[in-house]
Amino acid sequence: MNSFGQRFKFTTFGESHGKALGCVVDGVPAGIKIDEVFIQDEMNRRKPGGKYATSRKESDSIEILSGVFEGYSTGTSICMILFNENQKSRDYDNVKDLFRPGHADFTYYNKYGIRDYRGGGRSSARETSARVAAGAIAKMLLKELDIKIQSGICAIKDISIPNEQLDFSNSTNSEVYSLNSSYDDKFKDAINKAREEHDSIGGIVALKASNVPIGLGEPIYYKLDAILSNAMMSINASKAVEIGDGINSVLENGSSNNDEITKDGFKSNHSGGILGGISNGDDINMKVYFKPTPSIFKSQDTIDIHDDELKCELKGRHDPCVATRGSVVAESMMALVLADMLLLNMSSKMSNIKKVYN
Amino acid sequence: MNSFGQRFKFTTFGESHGKALGCVVDGVPAGIKIDEVFIQDEMNRRKPGGKYATSRKESDSIEILSGVFEGYSTGTSICMILFNENQKSRDYDNVKDLFRPGHADFTYYNKYGIRDYRGGGRSSARETSARVAAGAIAKMLLKELDIKIQSGICAIKDISIPNEQLDFSNSTNSEVYSLNSSYDDKFKDAINKAREEHDSIGGIVALKASNVPIGLGEPIYYKLDAILSNAMMSINASKAVEIGDGINSVLENGSSNNDEITKDGFKSNHSGGILGGISNGDDINMKVYFKPTPSIFKSQDTIDIHDDELKCELKGRHDPCVATRGSVVAESMMALVLADMLLLNMSSKMSNIKKVYN
Amino acid sequence: MNSFGQRFKFTTFGESHGKALGCVVDGVPAGIKIDEVFIQDEMNRRKPGGKYATSRKESDSIEILSGVFEGYSTGTSICMILFNENQKSRDYDNVKDLFRPGHADFTYYNKYGIRDYRGGGRSSARETSARVAAGAIAKMLLKELDIKIQSGICAIKDISIPNEQLDFSNSTNSEVYSLNSSYDDKFKDAINKAREEHDSIGGIVALKASNVPIGLGEPIYYKLDAILSNAMMSINASKAVEIGDGINSVLENGSSNNDEITKDGFKSNHSGGILGGISNGDDINMKVYFKPTPSIFKSQDTIDIHDDELKCELKGRHDPCVATRGSVVAESMMALVLADMLLLNMSSKMSNIKKVYN
Amino acid sequence: MNSFGQRFKFTTFGESHGKALGCVVDGVPAGIKIDEVFIQDEMNRRKPGGKYATSRKESDSIEILSGVFEGYSTGTSICMILFNENQKSRDYDNVKDLFRPGHADFTYYNKYGIRDYRGGGRSSARETSARVAAGAIAKMLLKELDIKIQSGICAIKDISIPNEQLDFSNSTNSEVYSLNSSYDDKFKDAINKAREEHDSIGGIVALKASNVPIGLGEPIYYKLDAILSNAMMSINASKAVEIGDGINSVLENGSSNNDEITKDGFKSNHSGGILGGISNGDDINMKVYFKPTPSIFKSQDTIDIHDDELKCELKGRHDPCVATRGSVVAESMMALVLADMLLLNMSSKMSNIKKVYN
Repeated sequence: MNSFGQRFKFTTFGESHGKALGCVVDGVPAGIKIDEVFIQDEMNRRKPGGKYATSRKESDSIEILSGVFEGYSTGTSICMILFNENQKSRDYDNVKDLFRPGHADFTYYNKYGIRDYRGGGRSSARETSARVAAGAIAKMLLKELDIKIQSGICAIKDISIPNEQLDFSNSTNSEVYSLNSSYDDKFKDAINKAREEHDSIGGIVALKASNVPIGLGEPIYYKLDAILSNAMMSINASKAVEIGDGINSVLENGSSNNDEITKDGFKSNHSGGILGGISNGDDINMKVYFKPTPSIFKSQDTIDIHDDELKCELKGRHDPCVATRGSVVAESMMALVLADMLLLNMSSKMSNIKKVYN
Repeated sequence: MNSFGQRFKFTTFGESHGKALGCVVDGVPAGIKIDEVFIQDEMNRRKPGGKYATSRKESDSIEILSGVFEGYSTGTSICMILFNENQKSRDYDNVKDLFRPGHADFTYYNKYGIRDYRGGGRSSARETSARVAAGAIAKMLLKELDIKIQSGICAIKDISIPNEQLDFSNSTNSEVYSLNSSYDDKFKDAINKAREEHDSIGGIVALKASNVPIGLGEPIYYKLDAILSNAMMSINASKAVEIGDGINSVLENGSSNNDEITKDGFKSNHSGGILGGISNGDDINMKVYFKPTPSIFKSQDTIDIHDDELKCELKGRHDPCVATRGSVVAESMMALVLADMLLLNMSSKMSNIKKVYN
Repeated sequence: MNSFGQRFKFTTFGESHGKALGCVVDGVPAGIKIDEVFIQDEMNRRKPGGKYATSRKESDSIEILSGVFEGYSTGTSICMILFNENQKSRDYDNVKDLFRPGHADFTYYNKYGIRDYRGGGRSSARETSARVAAGAIAKMLLKELDIKIQSGICAIKDISIPNEQLDFSNSTNSEVYSLNSSYDDKFKDAINKAREEHDSIGGIVALKASNVPIGLGEPIYYKLDAILSNAMMSINASKAVEIGDGINSVLENGSSNNDEITKDGFKSNHSGGILGGISNGDDINMKVYFKPTPSIFKSQDTIDIHDDELKCELKGRHDPCVATRGSVVAESMMALVLADMLLLNMSSKMSNIKKVYN
Repeated sequence: MNSFGQRFKFTTFGESHGKALGCVVDGVPAGIKIDEVFIQDEMNRRKPGGKYATSRKESDSIEILSGVFEGYSTGTSICMILFNENQKSRDYDNVKDLFRPGHADFTYYNKYGIRDYRGGGRSSARETSARVAAGAIAKMLLKELDIKIQSGICAIKDISIPNEQLDFSNSTNSEVYSLNSSYDDKFKDAINKAREEHDSIGGIVALKASNVPIGLGEPIYYKLDAILSNAMMSINASKAVEIGDGINSVLENGSSNNDEITKDGFKSNHSGGILGGISNGDDINMKVYFKPTPSIFKSQDTIDIHDDELKCELKGRHDPCVATRGSVVAESMMALVLADMLLLNMSSKMSNIKKVYN
């Protein structure tokens, strides 16, 4: 169950402090120009470091092992790998037997009877680096069809950018991935405050996909919104997801929530670009809610594998707010879902099939 | 893509006004006592009718065609079928070419180039009856392990029952599936008001699973919370989903959001019973947000398949608030996901395998 | 595990003497003209009856329940159903507890702990009627691309038609599905002799697919030849399968077995039209080896579910040679595999994707 | 489509002369002791070298990157990697544009529009090294349940060891993997003769699995024999497969082919240990037919990517008979299928589920 997707499919492997992490991307159409610099740039966007993230140092240097020949995808499986550089330095004696509150330690140990305790093992958010690598391949496919995905932070704790002020061009220039430059400082202050208090805070990621063809999404059980939700909720620390007006659509009436239609398209986009699980050609808008990072430096009650009660007192390097770098992961997952849906939709009607075979 | 699940898997078929709807449930372990009365009772819970739902009349009488012998599941695929009774009565001339706002008409037509316009065809919420039948089988499996699932309405529009007042025993006795008897009238009034205004309203469904074993959920890409979200977002009209504190966890700090652990279990349940995508033994709590029914009796702007602009003026029978009956569907989907996860988790560790084979 | 295929996918249900059998075909592209008469004709080709098969009487009348609207596929799941007519007439007391040699009784009982003993339940070859219905849909898709599949009997016991004398146009006119009219009587005599001796005999089915596009088959683990073999070996009583020269290729040298290539195509077709798991444009040739029907009227040693030894003495109606009608099932499975491969191959290269989306 | 299996699942990647090959094994139960020496020994059994194989020199040194902690499987995905050592040395100018007869060059190029021509790229038998690594993990799982798999060569060209003389203990000591020591020299002579003639020859691999529990195999479309056939036919150069008496069962009558049953088990094993697609507790016997290696040093007619006719004249290192090393790959595939079936069968009946959860 370390794979995602049906036709454009990826599999990841690797632990936080094991030898390496990586992904195998399967179903990549042949003939896509593979830009290794772009892949590395994507890795760097998610990379730890900077004032507002963990200070863990990793070069996150990605290497392609297969599936690319003379600069193009060949249609075979693409393996990309990321070696862990400082994998053995630390001493884990203080955490190896205890279950960190809010973490997966307790559930992994109980499910599997064994657990790689070094940095959370496979449950570490470091796993998401492999998703970003896979997502970069998906983005190259989307780019061939001029589909664009953007993301960023629309809220930190109770500081929220109104929807009509979201500026998706801002996040790539913002140290905190904010979607409005005038909120950068507010977000930074909130994060700094949490860090100083040895605590952490939550945040909300907004996502937008533009120029998506009508027809993506496979009802009934592979709907575009359902699979996007699946994808987002698979990211560490995400606790809620909404499409279009989402939560607020509950407060509306049908008459105010329906998007009326004219010759020139939909009059509004309450639906977030998806009707009946299928893209309608409008922008796809969604939000993902991230809980505060569970790793905090305050003392917490917990138990260990011997069922003894003790205090959990963490040290080391942690993001006070995972939502920020999480936005890059969410964006990558959206790209991966859309790439999959593009391939799946090809056989929706006989006329498409004839275009390919005649 | 009309199937859901990996090991406990179901496939549905059928259109709103076709000959029949139904499901094939695959991977059902042999030896489960199949209670046909219970299945029919579940069907009846979702069935249209009553003052607060559509007045469409369907007996929703379910028939088992295969996979059950002398009252027990045999391990082979179970097909259940539901014939549509009044399938041909209506005249669809006024809607057959137009796209109803908020509905899947536009996207189905564009994706497939053809569309069964009778009652929305396969995109109709009537498809969910097949899920309820499948869910009833899942519930019989869960019952053998004393796992219980409950659901109901926790909010209609802006009328919301506080979490601490949710009473999951109330919904089965409430015409509006409410989770607190003192809210029944408020919810009814809101629904009636919407109906009188020829409009519709949204609502929120709350779900609870109790006595779930620790260990369900398959990281990284078949996490329990991610698949539950997938399942819920596949239901007609759902626009958002949250696990545990969900949306509100954004407003917390790590120190207030983490669930500390003692010998006697978790001190709180902000996580909604899932950590790292795996059940932790606590109640699984989640909410699903339903938009207002798109079918309203107000005049709306739209276009038809010839790209001509016209007015959409619907008649007939519709639920003013789909969230109510939707709660039964959500509960069924939760049962289906948990049944699947139970089977998947069996091979998590070698000691389990030896229990079966030695 | 009652489903087959990835994109063009079908699921079957039903027991030999249950209420009904049927299939759900998923992933059928919209816009295919669905010819119900053709489907019924296919059912009739496989139907029991006639001098050289079982005399079980079933009308095998198929009904489409969903997925077809105004004569065309809509892209939604197509359910087809076949009600069993004389399901309850017989008395099974003499076989209900014993394991018939050569049948699946022993393994089903031990695997599931329960078994529908009426006519073999789900392990009966009657299940294959659902495959023929699904296969008929696949054939309509193939027909749109002028791909043709043929089949028939090339050997009964040791009476074998040489490859160079195979006439694929003969089988539809032959009561024993023979691939050369001059062998009809020899095959009939062999079958009659087996029947008179209360015994059964084996046979070999040959299959040919013509006008298959180059490129079908998804290496490494969904190769065309591997999946065709999977499909054929899933048919009751099949014990071996070969592609192209198959078994005899062992006796050749590379120099005699390789198919040399010229501008006008391959000089020979030892490979059976598949290289590296991908179709090469030549005819796809394969053979399937069917064992003698395990149901015979001679007394055989066996045990029952109480582990008591006893004699198995069968009565009733059985095919003395299942290979004959089995050829129609094999042909249907080949159609289903090719339909699936056609859809899967669409996304093999970026240029195909652009044909669909630009 | 570079993955195989449902619950015990592996994905492979890598080209013959790319940077690396490898596999990701998913669904491995936690708590299996992982013996790295055993994995390397398995790699060495398949490794090129020796008098009767290609003289290509590869250390085939395997490295585990993830999923194993302190010597045990953790339940997370296990990635194993094999770096290619002499990947860039050769000059491919003479073959880069032409299609070698009997190879996948023609079909890959036409399917994908691009092709890694170095040593056949992904279509090279070198890919099977990754299967052997994955198979070694499967074997460790099988070993915990005392299931044993053996393999070897039972025929080279027309020199065939009779079934009753097969000695499965011989192959690990035989340079040509023969299943009877008295045939070693005959097989060697045949291989040497082919080599001297610059040609190649075919052979047959026999496989045996012992102590397999009753009940493995998931009807109807994941039958044990069907999936074993799928697995074997996915191996390079395999052209036919048979289970039990297989091809010869066609020549029998039902009365001679059925395996009668006594209290002490089956009286014979014509079925090859599988009835109705489910293991019956007897040894599983099967054979795989390998065509002669397509790479020969004789001049052959072919065309190139410009559709020009020319002569294919190969040089370099090739196995004159791929069946020999192929036996190790077939054995690995059998282990992978059985491991998958073991996990799948766990949920066949409610009583098994209660063993795990109660």
